[in-house]
Amino acid sequence: MLHFDSDYMEGAHPAIIERLAATNLDQTPGYGTDAVCESARNRIRHACGAPDAAVHFLVGGTQANAAVIDQLLRPWEGVISADTGHINGHEAGAVEAHGRKILPIPHRNGKLDAGDVRARYESWAAGEAREHEVQPGMVYLSQATEYGTLYTLDELKALRAVCDECGMRLFIDGARLGYALAALEGALSLRDIAAVADAFYIGGTKVGALFGEAVVFPNPALADHFFTLTKKHGALLAKGRMLGLQFDVLFEEDSPEANAGSALVEAERTRYLANGRHAVGLARTLAQGFVDAGYELAMDSPTNQQFVAMDDETCACLRESATFEVWERRADGKLVVRFVTSWATRPEAVAQLLALL
Amino acid sequence: MLHFDSDYMEGAHPAIIERLAATNLDQTPGYGTDAVCESARNRIRHACGAPDAAVHFLVGGTQANAAVIDQLLRPWEGVISADTGHINGHEAGAVEAHGRKILPIPHRNGKLDAGDVRARYESWAAGEAREHEVQPGMVYLSQATEYGTLYTLDELKALRAVCDECGMRLFIDGARLGYALAALEGALSLRDIAAVADAFYIGGTKVGALFGEAVVFPNPALADHFFTLTKKHGALLAKGRMLGLQFDVLFEEDSPEANAGSALVEAERTRYLANGRHAVGLARTLAQGFVDAGYELAMDSPTNQQFVAMDDETCACLRESATFEVWERRADGKLVVRFVTSWATRPEAVAQLLALL
Amino acid sequence: MLHFDSDYMEGAHPAIIERLAATNLDQTPGYGTDAVCESARNRIRHACGAPDAAVHFLVGGTQANAAVIDQLLRPWEGVISADTGHINGHEAGAVEAHGRKILPIPHRNGKLDAGDVRARYESWAAGEAREHEVQPGMVYLSQATEYGTLYTLDELKALRAVCDECGMRLFIDGARLGYALAALEGALSLRDIAAVADAFYIGGTKVGALFGEAVVFPNPALADHFFTLTKKHGALLAKGRMLGLQFDVLFEEDSPEANAGSALVEAERTRYLANGRHAVGLARTLAQGFVDAGYELAMDSPTNQQFVAMDDETCACLRESATFEVWERRADGKLVVRFVTSWATRPEAVAQLLALL
Amino acid sequence: MLHFDSDYMEGAHPAIIERLAATNLDQTPGYGTDAVCESARNRIRHACGAPDAAVHFLVGGTQANAAVIDQLLRPWEGVISADTGHINGHEAGAVEAHGRKILPIPHRNGKLDAGDVRARYESWAAGEAREHEVQPGMVYLSQATEYGTLYTLDELKALRAVCDECGMRLFIDGARLGYALAALEGALSLRDIAAVADAFYIGGTKVGALFGEAVVFPNPALADHFFTLTKKHGALLAKGRMLGLQFDVLFEEDSPEANAGSALVEAERTRYLANGRHAVGLARTLAQGFVDAGYELAMDSPTNQQFVAMDDETCACLRESATFEVWERRADGKLVVRFVTSWATRPEAVAQLLALL
Repeated sequence: MLHFDSDYMEGAHPAIIERLAATNLDQTPGYGTDAVCESARNRIRHACGAPDAAVHFLVGGTQANAAVIDQLLRPWEGVISADTGHINGHEAGAVEAHGRKILPIPHRNGKLDAGDVRARYESWAAGEAREHEVQPGMVYLSQATEYGTLYTLDELKALRAVCDECGMRLFIDGARLGYALAALEGALSLRDIAAVADAFYIGGTKVGALFGEAVVFPNPALADHFFTLTKKHGALLAKGRMLGLQFDVLFEEDSPEANAGSALVEAERTRYLANGRHAVGLARTLAQGFVDAGYELAMDSPTNQQFVAMDDETCACLRESATFEVWERRADGKLVVRFVTSWATRPEAVAQLLALL
Repeated sequence: MLHFDSDYMEGAHPAIIERLAATNLDQTPGYGTDAVCESARNRIRHACGAPDAAVHFLVGGTQANAAVIDQLLRPWEGVISADTGHINGHEAGAVEAHGRKILPIPHRNGKLDAGDVRARYESWAAGEAREHEVQPGMVYLSQATEYGTLYTLDELKALRAVCDECGMRLFIDGARLGYALAALEGALSLRDIAAVADAFYIGGTKVGALFGEAVVFPNPALADHFFTLTKKHGALLAKGRMLGLQFDVLFEEDSPEANAGSALVEAERTRYLANGRHAVGLARTLAQGFVDAGYELAMDSPTNQQFVAMDDETCACLRESATFEVWERRADGKLVVRFVTSWATRPEAVAQLLALL
Repeated sequence: MLHFDSDYMEGAHPAIIERLAATNLDQTPGYGTDAVCESARNRIRHACGAPDAAVHFLVGGTQANAAVIDQLLRPWEGVISADTGHINGHEAGAVEAHGRKILPIPHRNGKLDAGDVRARYESWAAGEAREHEVQPGMVYLSQATEYGTLYTLDELKALRAVCDECGMRLFIDGARLGYALAALEGALSLRDIAAVADAFYIGGTKVGALFGEAVVFPNPALADHFFTLTKKHGALLAKGRMLGLQFDVLFEEDSPEANAGSALVEAERTRYLANGRHAVGLARTLAQGFVDAGYELAMDSPTNQQFVAMDDETCACLRESATFEVWERRADGKLVVRFVTSWATRPEAVAQLLALL
Repeated sequence: MLHFDSDYMEGAHPAIIERLAATNLDQTPGYGTDAVCESARNRIRHACGAPDAAVHFLVGGTQANAAVIDQLLRPWEGVISADTGHINGHEAGAVEAHGRKILPIPHRNGKLDAGDVRARYESWAAGEAREHEVQPGMVYLSQATEYGTLYTLDELKALRAVCDECGMRLFIDGARLGYALAALEGALSLRDIAAVADAFYIGGTKVGALFGEAVVFPNPALADHFFTLTKKHGALLAKGRMLGLQFDVLFEEDSPEANAGSALVEAERTRYLANGRHAVGLARTLAQGFVDAGYELAMDSPTNQQFVAMDDETCACLRESATFEVWERRADGKLVVRFVTSWATRPEAVAQLLALL
């Protein structure tokens, strides 16, 4: 059976497992105060071009979202999100659990539009009763989005400008940031993310780690007492070294030999980006294979998720040999089917899937 | 350097690392819905003699405490805890973060006394203004306690009886349950815990896992929608298999060969209990060694924490070769020093420490 | 100057002030446990045809909404509301402050449509990831709505049916219930409200009281410990008698002499309904006056809010003698202007306004 | 029957009822934005010698406590309170409902001791694990306390000094502030309170108002967006004028004629202080009467609560003609009985009670 359901079905990059095994009985203090975590923090600061950044390792995306939002909002504020945002529909009310309100606005292809965000803020600011309402204090977005779509650097800068004008903070959920960076390589870098966001996280869970998200506050003043806040959220890992270790491995140079003659600059040679490139490359191979076989792509998706239109019969036939998600039925009666690749997808699996066509 | 600071300085039992490596690229669905988690749940149900129990795997103790308390309290209720309880002093307000009040009462050697608990409830019930107060709805205790002390089975039954009479639930924090069970072997079993508690957790983080606590509700009706509640708490691990895998390994038979002629019954042969026995055995060796060398034990501690009285000079001298915690200074001027062993402590380290005396 | 801005600009019905003065130095116990409150509760139970109802007096609408929602939702549930619902846009996040999520859906003329509500529930129920989402557990609506529109009895019954099928509770915010009942007299009664809702409140603040909302749970089992919950919400008035007194006056027979030959049955003769009739009657006089003077009504509003279209010049001219709210500018360039009447509006003020035209 | 149970059994000072009646049909905007509230705010600023103070009117003490604590704490902080503090035992968890932890310490005669507070802070600050704990960020105390005891100005200054040294804020619950100020007249004034506290409230409910507490932040920067926060707490009264009106009356000069030849300076001539003096004076008369009749006072209480020791027979006998609270039974077998006077107590009632002896 070939699996293309999601990007968190496997364990971790083998180099992580190796390091875990090799250092298993090392003895270090807890809660991320060890040298391994410090090494990982420094690699991330370096990759982000943010030498003063506060970097905190949390276990998962939902807790990272809830804790950062709790950290950056003031008591009378709420957070603007696309109505399709992960925090709004898929996190069981974790943001509200801490007394924070989400202010959803309609998405555009999964994304927030800077003009829409400004309009939402201005609608609040212009209201006579604005002091009776939750003030927009923050913008939350995901790169890549739930729809696998991407923000360009210009779009992010436009959102940053709105935030600056309106006194809002900007938070980027990077659960799939590795795939976004790979898809936009040359046009958007971690440094760009660190330059526009007040906080963001580098998703490990879906890009090669067993678990873990690295929350980055480029300006450490915004992370005041975030350690205690994560504890209050139940989000502080006792053996914090396990998180540092994984990010330390992911932000090492991937393969010095393979990179020997490469044009990649240092910041592009991390295992994290290599994981992203692997998945995005296979996703494109897969998409091209479907097109070559006469299929229609249902969306223009640049990342590790590809959406293909097919009839019911073909879908049923493919399901005998592969797992994937049926996304929706189109108006023309065709099914839209989603195939997801990951850092762990084998090229042979893609070839076998295409051979089935 | 010899380390006796805490029981979460190392990684995991080697058998866990082996299983992780061997199954790393297996593909399974997320959030604990996989077969590995189901296997672990069944092993735990079996060990607890609770075939219908709801078993949920969470990453850490603070989130487990906050989520279970949120699950079992009704909106107008609070939770009785020893004032020294972990939830009261060491969790940054995680219980209160979800709108729940802790009702602390004085401890007795780290423990709750059934009579004190009843008196606290009755004081509430007798008050004319009781409807203006938070109603005691639950009792929280740790086995072992923060002081390394233990509840006997009779003491637990007495607390259970108070809970039954007063309509309260009983929740046992088992962050160090493995050490408690080893210290009380023959007098208290997992089955006993499951018989007295409405909910408890089997701590993995401190007893051989990389991370993870197995929350058990012997009566599954009390766990209604706990899955969604853990998500709301940010406490649901995406790659849930990693938790199931660790508990599956910990609840396997430890060493079939070594157990071949052993008198241990099946439920006593788990790796989890073996980890506990290892630490408790070395703690006793260490304590006896101190006594033999003329030192005084400052407390009668049956678990993996030993408290030794010594003068400043001896303490300073030992610190050159070992790390440990200075607990307090006694009225007689002597220091009380704490040594902690774990599933990972090497017998040679204990011998080397004793040789220093 | 003539004031038509809102329906809470004056104090209270004179009969309330008289009773306050007459009983001011009476001595009674606090927190609503006095005989005056009990009398008011009984009048309300009688008017609702709900002899067992739990009736609680709260001071204001926001606290009533937050407390009832907190009472009736289970921890994993949220509340469906029109996106224009008062709880969603005008209460500064009071519902979320207690960890509850609002699930907004598009309104239809300010109202919820039973089909839309069912679709929202079914969309949740059909989702593979529904256990990661907040479950719709309750429907919140206002009668009258923010737009001054009304639910017919059939529409309420349709919503009740959806709630029954989907295991949801139904809560009616009655901040302006008196005006709604007056506008629908003969077609909808308090008894009907009590028959369809799990909880609702009878708004006093906007219908003749200084302050106060009477929260009614027709089935008292749903109000278990609501007294303590209101205290937890900071919503329990010490001198609760002041609330009971006002509702006791409002639910007395208005004017026995005037009613002597009237066809009104007993339940229709309360001062509360008389207050509603007064405002609705004047609103209709005002609307007819505008129509007679050649103006266009911008909405078909049956309650105490009337919306008139006019050009800028007329509006500016009227503003010299009257206060009112400019609601919006229409596509055709005309302004939509809102005039609000209340229990306290003088007929002469309406006549004077119309004379200005 | 003579009532000495509590100080909130009656309505309001007659001058308040008169003003209510006289201005009942005035039309003003809502939420405290009217001229009456502004007048009251200015009177209070003047009486406090705090011309820039932010003054907000809330309905009751529990909501005032919860809102101020929510306003002044940062997310990682908690509030130190005497274990007997009203917020800790009598408010149904209202502080915790907003995610805040109370840090109780033992009381001394109902009061906090500055040395104890400093020790609590230093214990936190000295802990190696302090970042895992809730940081003491605020001190809460009541003047007068639950026990009717009082802080001297020096004691308050000592607490202020601790707060300054430890970076904590100081909040004074003044539910019975009027009685405290009357009892300490000449030794402690409202200006002193305003000079030592970061926030406090002037209790109206128990000192002559129907309801209402005036929350004062002498430094308005600390009240940033407190309006919206009170709305979030469900604590914003729609017809805010009703609160302003009451405090406007209470902070008027009581009786210009009576004060004509008085030595009282302007700030001492308010109706609020006169109410306090009335109750305290009668309490002392009552106490002296008991002493003269051979009874023993069980506590040295300077305010409007008096505690008398008596045998069961006397108590039973008195209960035939009067209501009061039995506080406790002493070790010597005698009952301690509490008599409370208020702004509304009639001198004849005191005389009648004493005549019963």
